[in-house]
Amino acid sequence: MRLALELASRATMATSPNPKVGCVLVKDGVILGQGWTQPVGQAHAEVMALRDAAAQGHKVFGATAYVTLEPCSHFGRTPPCANALIDAGLVRVVAAIEDANPQVAGRGFAMLRDAGISVEHGLFALEAREMNIGFFKRMETGRPWVRLKMAASLDGFTALPNGQSQWITDGAAREDGHRWRARADAILTGIGTVLADDPQLSIRLPEVDSVQSHQPRKVIVDSQLRTPVAAKIFRTGSTTIYHAVSDEAREAALKAVGAQLHCMPENKLENTSDTRSDKKVQVDLTALITALGSEQVNELHVEAGAKLSGALIQAGCVDELLLYMAPKLMGQGASMFALPELQSLDEVRSLRIHQVTQVGEAIRILARL
Amino acid sequence: MRLALELASRATMATSPNPKVGCVLVKDGVILGQGWTQPVGQAHAEVMALRDAAAQGHKVFGATAYVTLEPCSHFGRTPPCANALIDAGLVRVVAAIEDANPQVAGRGFAMLRDAGISVEHGLFALEAREMNIGFFKRMETGRPWVRLKMAASLDGFTALPNGQSQWITDGAAREDGHRWRARADAILTGIGTVLADDPQLSIRLPEVDSVQSHQPRKVIVDSQLRTPVAAKIFRTGSTTIYHAVSDEAREAALKAVGAQLHCMPENKLENTSDTRSDKKVQVDLTALITALGSEQVNELHVEAGAKLSGALIQAGCVDELLLYMAPKLMGQGASMFALPELQSLDEVRSLRIHQVTQVGEAIRILARL
Repeated sequence: MRLALELASRATMATSPNPKVGCVLVKDGVILGQGWTQPVGQAHAEVMALRDAAAQGHKVFGATAYVTLEPCSHFGRTPPCANALIDAGLVRVVAAIEDANPQVAGRGFAMLRDAGISVEHGLFALEAREMNIGFFKRMETGRPWVRLKMAASLDGFTALPNGQSQWITDGAAREDGHRWRARADAILTGIGTVLADDPQLSIRLPEVDSVQSHQPRKVIVDSQLRTPVAAKIFRTGSTTIYHAVSDEAREAALKAVGAQLHCMPENKLENTSDTRSDKKVQVDLTALITALGSEQVNELHVEAGAKLSGALIQAGCVDELLLYMAPKLMGQGASMFALPELQSLDEVRSLRIHQVTQVGEAIRILARL
Repeated sequence: MRLALELASRATMATSPNPKVGCVLVKDGVILGQGWTQPVGQAHAEVMALRDAAAQGHKVFGATAYVTLEPCSHFGRTPPCANALIDAGLVRVVAAIEDANPQVAGRGFAMLRDAGISVEHGLFALEAREMNIGFFKRMETGRPWVRLKMAASLDGFTALPNGQSQWITDGAAREDGHRWRARADAILTGIGTVLADDPQLSIRLPEVDSVQSHQPRKVIVDSQLRTPVAAKIFRTGSTTIYHAVSDEAREAALKAVGAQLHCMPENKLENTSDTRSDKKVQVDLTALITALGSEQVNELHVEAGAKLSGALIQAGCVDELLLYMAPKLMGQGASMFALPELQSLDEVRSLRIHQVTQVGEAIRILARL
């Protein structure tokens, strides 16, 4: 199963919205075939492993399949993997975890058992879930796993009082940040960041430089339609702007540079805790996140300023913080998250530290809400 | 040598101002004796190891001593350990590191070599130095190793806007903080903390509860002599107040509750970067730290507010930050360090991450300036 997990990790984000899966076929202690999920629409891990065994001239009749996720039971873009395993004459399937997809959810196991195959699951279930955390989140809630990235000094500042913020972290941390962008299905930012930093939000890594199709789609929260048509964010991949006001001329200009637009204003009466500063109507963040889930976004990577980041946290939309703490002291400056003033430590929002790693000079913290 | 380091770690801070040392005597692959430094004025590690061997009936003639520090060569509170090793007939001494004490500094090795003993050093030198980092700092510079403790939320706040700060970290982090207090020779705080929190700054740990002598001395930076005579800090151990103004009545009252007083005003002309708010004359922090070094303080533990902590950092007096980051988001509140506003990230003070550990729910970061 460890090997199957390792194989699963070789699948690129091009599998999305499908989960990354690994499969190993074993008989009498000998590995007969290995496979992992191919880009969406192509073969799943089980079929790849069967093909690998065949290519090596191995007969898999009577073999055991170790697979990191319950084999699928439905005709989606490809035929059911459960059928493929049954037809190949396997006698035992060990899966790490049950599929959360309501179209599968135990039916893959049932199909295998009905065909007389011995089925077990639960081995490395946690690892298998973590590997596809966005897929599981979306299958269970309809919403993506939202990971919010922030870089700050050791004393908690994201910019100097004069606004200077490039760069607080070193090259190693920034490259690591691009890897996290790369595994996401979409990258979300706010109009404040677009106006202040004019970011491309593209993935600039040696290994994906030439893979234009690998650039996640970009999403801008721009309630008042202030995104400049010359913004660098339009240079690579597709960009969707969620806004809250209508303005035909602005909308037409933005569409002309390739932006997709969605008007999704919040119901002001319902929202009393939004800390974004102006009193103008804002994008409904909860509806936005749900909409991205409907569009099969499994993992959403947020790189935004303190206002939008704070508003997303306040709206309960964030699952995980990805913090880079640079070993620097700034003393004064901009805070990480705009959140309402609290009167008691009992009201403080608590997180759970998931992982702490050193990346270059910085400390990388994954904390879950 | 690993065993010798492990033995050294058993020595308590009661050895201070002497370094913690471990010694293992070996012959033909057999351990003949082990020892570690006893409380100050009592036997050093080498003598303890010789006594241990004798108590077990082992003859150490021809043996090798593994010792975590160069054996001492001078008559201090005890006779030179080098002599003891020579008299015992050892043939080889392997030391982790040369002693930085100018009274030793290679003379121990020279004495051994002059007596025909083979001497090597450098094995686990870094570990041996870390174990006695305050001793080495003081021997080399005359000043203690200054470790500044701070507890903050993940977004960098030490208190809510209304001042509430107890408790940001959980019990495990606070107990860990007491262990760091315990290994220090003195604990330094500021009048702001004394007035706001009225701390005892005593060590409350199961293992040292009854050891009154183990309470490090306490030092208050109180420029204007505002410490209340009823302050809890006077309840345990000795307390020294460093002040910058004279006031006979206040001084007499504070002496009456057991405080020692030192007037150490700074030369205002020399200091243009102190961020402590009022324009009144302040304690000269550099002179204070040097004075503590003269008083044989090897490790100084600082638990103070943002103003004094920032001023110590600004004055270049801090060697290491001990940060507890609680997995909480406060959004707004008090910052960690009062430091002057910077205009460019090029001016930002950089640190080096020395160690990152999870303690209870919190992340403990040791970062060096």
